[in-house]
This record gives sequence, C-alpha cells and structure tokens, in this order.
Amino acid sequence: MVNVAVDIMGGDNAPAEPVKGAIEAVTSQDGIKVFLCGNKDVIEQELKKYQYPEDRVDIVDASEVIETGEPPVMAIRKKKDSSIVKGLNLVKDGVCDAFVSAGSSGAILVGGQVIVGRIKGVERPPLAPVFPTDNGISLLIDCGANVDARASHLVQFAKMGSIYMEHVLGVHNPKVGLLNIGAEEEKGNMLVKETYPLLKNCPDINFIGSVEAREIPKGTADVVVCEAFAGNVALKMYEGVGSTMIGALKETFSSSLATKLAYLLVKPTLKKTLKRFDATEYGGAPLLGLKGLVVKTHGNATHKEISTSIKQCVTFKEQEINKKINDTINMLE
Amino acid sequence: MVNVAVDIMGGDNAPAEPVKGAIEAVTSQDGIKVFLCGNKDVIEQELKKYQYPEDRVDIVDASEVIETGEPPVMAIRKKKDSSIVKGLNLVKDGVCDAFVSAGSSGAILVGGQVIVGRIKGVERPPLAPVFPTDNGISLLIDCGANVDARASHLVQFAKMGSIYMEHVLGVHNPKVGLLNIGAEEEKGNMLVKETYPLLKNCPDINFIGSVEAREIPKGTADVVVCEAFAGNVALKMYEGVGSTMIGALKETFSSSLATKLAYLLVKPTLKKTLKRFDATEYGGAPLLGLKGLVVKTHGNATHKEISTSIKQCVTFKEQEINKKINDTINMLE
Repeated sequence: MVNVAVDIMGGDNAPAEPVKGAIEAVTSQDGIKVFLCGNKDVIEQELKKYQYPEDRVDIVDASEVIETGEPPVMAIRKKKDSSIVKGLNLVKDGVCDAFVSAGSSGAILVGGQVIVGRIKGVERPPLAPVFPTDNGISLLIDCGANVDARASHLVQFAKMGSIYMEHVLGVHNPKVGLLNIGAEEEKGNMLVKETYPLLKNCPDINFIGSVEAREIPKGTADVVVCEAFAGNVALKMYEGVGSTMIGALKETFSSSLATKLAYLLVKPTLKKTLKRFDATEYGGAPLLGLKGLVVKTHGNATHKEISTSIKQCVTFKEQEINKKINDTINMLE
Repeated sequence: MVNVAVDIMGGDNAPAEPVKGAIEAVTSQDGIKVFLCGNKDVIEQELKKYQYPEDRVDIVDASEVIETGEPPVMAIRKKKDSSIVKGLNLVKDGVCDAFVSAGSSGAILVGGQVIVGRIKGVERPPLAPVFPTDNGISLLIDCGANVDARASHLVQFAKMGSIYMEHVLGVHNPKVGLLNIGAEEEKGNMLVKETYPLLKNCPDINFIGSVEAREIPKGTADVVVCEAFAGNVALKMYEGVGSTMIGALKETFSSSLATKLAYLLVKPTLKKTLKRFDATEYGGAPLLGLKGLVVKTHGNATHKEISTSIKQCVTFKEQEINKKINDTINMLE
C-alpha cells in the first residue's frame, strides 16, 4: 500500500478538486491510500458526493490554511495545524510516502526541506516540473527552489532528474541538456561555463550539451538542467505565451459569423491540439532529493492533475527512486 | 540627412532582403541615405531589380563575410574587410549615424563595443529587442549582451530602455519592471534583491516593481529589465513556444476536410492575429549606450524588418537619444 497525504486546502480549486482527484486515484487503482489533510467538516461535506472504499480514505483534520502570499518560513513555523505542515509531518513520521499539494510553492519548498529533510549528500532539493513538448514531455530542473545555485548543485539536479525521468516517467536513457544562451561550449555565464565540463564528464547521465530555451518546446532534451531563476523564467514564459496565444485565438474565432463557423468545424481537433500544451495534464512537479516525496501541482490544478500526481507517487515508491538517488549521489562523494 | 550603413551579407535572407529593405526605406521616406555594405557585384546585381534615388544609395564594397558560428572577437579582429567591420567603421568615423545588420549577434555586440565604443559613463551596452504583447510592444533589456551583470548595470539598462521606449517607440512615461520569479520585493536571486531598491529609488524612471515572466506577454511593463542570461531565456522561450504552437495549429488545420474548410473561413482574421505575435514586425534590437546606433535584426529578417529598423534610426537621431542617454547616465555619477 502506498500512502499519500493530499492537501485539500491548497490551490485555486480547493477543496472540491483535490478531494475529487484523491477519490479518483483510490477508485481507479488499488494499493493507494489517501490521507486528506484539511478542515474535517469541509472534507466530509465534499466526500458525500462520492462512493469510495472507506478503508483507503482517511481524514487528517487541520484547522489552519497557509495562504499563497504568506512569507513561507514564518508560515511553516507558526501554522503547525495547517494542512501543509500536517501533511509533511505524515511523510516525516513515515505514516505517508508522499505529500501532494496545490498550495503555496514557497511553503511547500521550505516545509519539504525543514520538516521532511534532505537525503544525505543532496545539497539542494530541486523542483522539477514536467513540460509538454513536440516529442512528449521534458523535465525542467530546477525551476524555483534554489536561486544562486552552484555548479555542484546543477550536477546533482542532472542526476536526480535523469533518475526521475527514466524510472517514473518512463523515458529510457533520458537526454540531459544544460540550459544556455548559445549552443557552443564556450557560451554562457560563469555558472554554465563551470557546469558544462562537469556534466560532460559525469558518467551517470546522457549529456547532450547546451540547449537554448528555443529548443525546450521542441523536446530536444528530456531533462533540462538550469539554475532556478532561469528555470522559473523559462517555465512562466512558456505558460504566459501559451495563455496569451490561446486568448488571442479565442478572440479570433469569435470575431465574425464566418470565424464562428470555422470554430465549429475545427473544434474537436483544436481541443486535442491545445490539450497537448496544457501542463496540468502531466502531473505535478516533484521536489526531489527529500527523504519522502513531495509534489507541488499547479495552483489551478484540477482533479485530473491531482489524481495523476497521486498515481505517480506509486511509481516513485515502487521504483525506489529515493534509494536510486541516494546511491547515485553518495557513490561519487 | 540620416546616414545608415546596412549589412547586405548578414542573415538568412541575404543579400536579397537587406537590399530590398534598404531601398524600401529610402523610397518611402526622404532624408535617409543608405550605405550598402557587402560584395559590390552581388549588391549591383540586386539593385537592378529596383528604381531608386541613386544619390541616396551608396555601395561600400566588402570582400569578407563573418559567419554566425565564428568566434566573435577573432572574427572582428581578423576580418577587417567584412561587411560588419566596414559598416561599424562608417559609424565610428562619423560617416554614418547607424548600422543595421541581421548577421552574427556575437560579432555585432563585440564590434559595437570595440569599434564604435561606449558613451562615457555607460558600463555595459545592453541589447534591447522589442516584444509583441497584448498591449502593443515591450522592450526586453538586456537580452544577451552582458552575462553576469551587476546591479549598477541593470539600473543603467532601466534608464536607457526608458529613453528609447519613450522617444523612439513613443510610449509616454514607460512602466519599468524588474524581471523576477515572484511579485514581492523579497523574492529573487541576489542580483535582483540588490537591484530592486536601486530602481525603486531611481528618480529617472517609472518603476512598477517586479514582473514575472508570465506577465511579459501581457504587456504589464513597457520596459522589462533583466540580466542577459535570463533575458535571453525569456526571449527565446517566447519565440520557441510561439513557433511550436503555430506549427501545431498548421497541423490541426490540415488534418481533415472539415478543418481545411475551417481554415479558409478563419484565415484572414487568423493571419492578423498571428502577425501580432511576429516579433519581426517591430524592427530590430538596438545595442544601446554606444557612440552611434547599432541595430541587430532577427537573423531571418525580411525587407519589412530591415526597412522599419532603418526608419527607426531616423527617430533615434532626431530625438537625440544618445545625448539623452549621456545626460541621464552622467548627471548622477
């Protein structure tokens, strides 16, 4: 049995969608038990909507909620009875294998490190969201957890990202690229120039060299390694351009009778196309290198992303990802 | 008369499009003279296609071409008879006011600094491309010229970008945002945290605070200030997502009879929409803070972008942008 704590109070669609996603996960797959963390009354109310195996759904009452705008360190320290702190403590205490939340990124990142703790030898745990590409999906690592990282951190990101991509997402011998502003080895800032030869000489990964941001949506690399500031810029630019273009398309199609008719004709195919670009289809972003699994989904995650994330926790445990990370990180140190 | 040197040998569409763009500029507007830099025979051949005022079109023979892949410092030093070095020398010698090229970014950046030289007091000349947004256009500064910049550089970028945006592109009192990974003042890496209060206390600009990459396509800020690595990632991600989505749309519309019919119906409106996202519509990126104007267009620039860039050189001179930059930078030092 894989035990997953789920934050019911976090994200734009709480509590309805996290509850729905959790129930979807337990009803679609045996061997999962969910621990719904949040206000007991609210959760019980939501649960009335569903039929589900009661022995695989627990409620963990939490009276507080950490809001997105709150300074994370303070929030984790003060709100001991929040859904995030309670969920992370379940992982720390070994009751749960993983914690899934659509709540405050900052609080999840800080709480993951402070409460769950790092695997020995892991210097910084990176956040690694999955990206839709022309080829399928890629992993962008690190995407916001550790600004001002050093070259040795990026090497660890490359190793952890490769393990996750191969064993959880099923990409054989994943191609690792270093996010850069040119394809040549001598291009880049100081961090990238220092990191490049380390990755080139790293036997544990399939390094393909520098990758420009332009290449990311094409899927040139399966694992894109970067410092968190640049990674965050890349991720949010992806989302920003996507939503701006989709908005412009909607306007285009609603501008006249002819375009409305065009929309009716193209709608089924277009929906499929746009779905490919929807990052929420692919599950949340793991915070790798912790003693348990912590997954941050998009703030606007629906039940689909929550349930996909919960099911990925099963693969994560079955594939013994943390043991693999531990072995890889500590073998060479 | 504004004299503009134009690189005829640079970019994917050389020599045809640069020549066409230059001719378009002189025929559509009085007061411009172009100096076409490149192989004389090739240029004469191209010029046969057009009718134009011969007293406002000069040929500057250049026997060499700097290729995109060449190491820039070496190329500028060795290829004295290249179109880039000859064009930049025309600016240095005061024969021309500006140089426009679709060629090697690296060579243009290096050559601009080494040959044309910086305005006194300017620490680093940034490259500032224009971005299409929901609101019109924004300027992203710096986008690839100076990696590992310091906070003082970013403050100068903000000032120079504001001057360019206001006086060349006509945006009154442009809003300046600092590219960051969160909206709050305490967010960001060391560079951003150091830069934020400097911009906040800078009297010469209209600072609106941090801007996330997600906001860039919305046009939240008119001038987005950033270090070159992050700026380059943002720019190339923008281009990458755009071209990937446009590719997917093309596939969608050609997938069946119904979608092909839909395309016929929506085509005129859709073309207008997609044009809005085409960065090449808005002219090239100036390298600001040099003693003359150097403009880098997209490598795939067509005549439209070349002629727009040439015409912007006129506004740049008329508005005495370099005098304004000089006054602003040196008043406070």
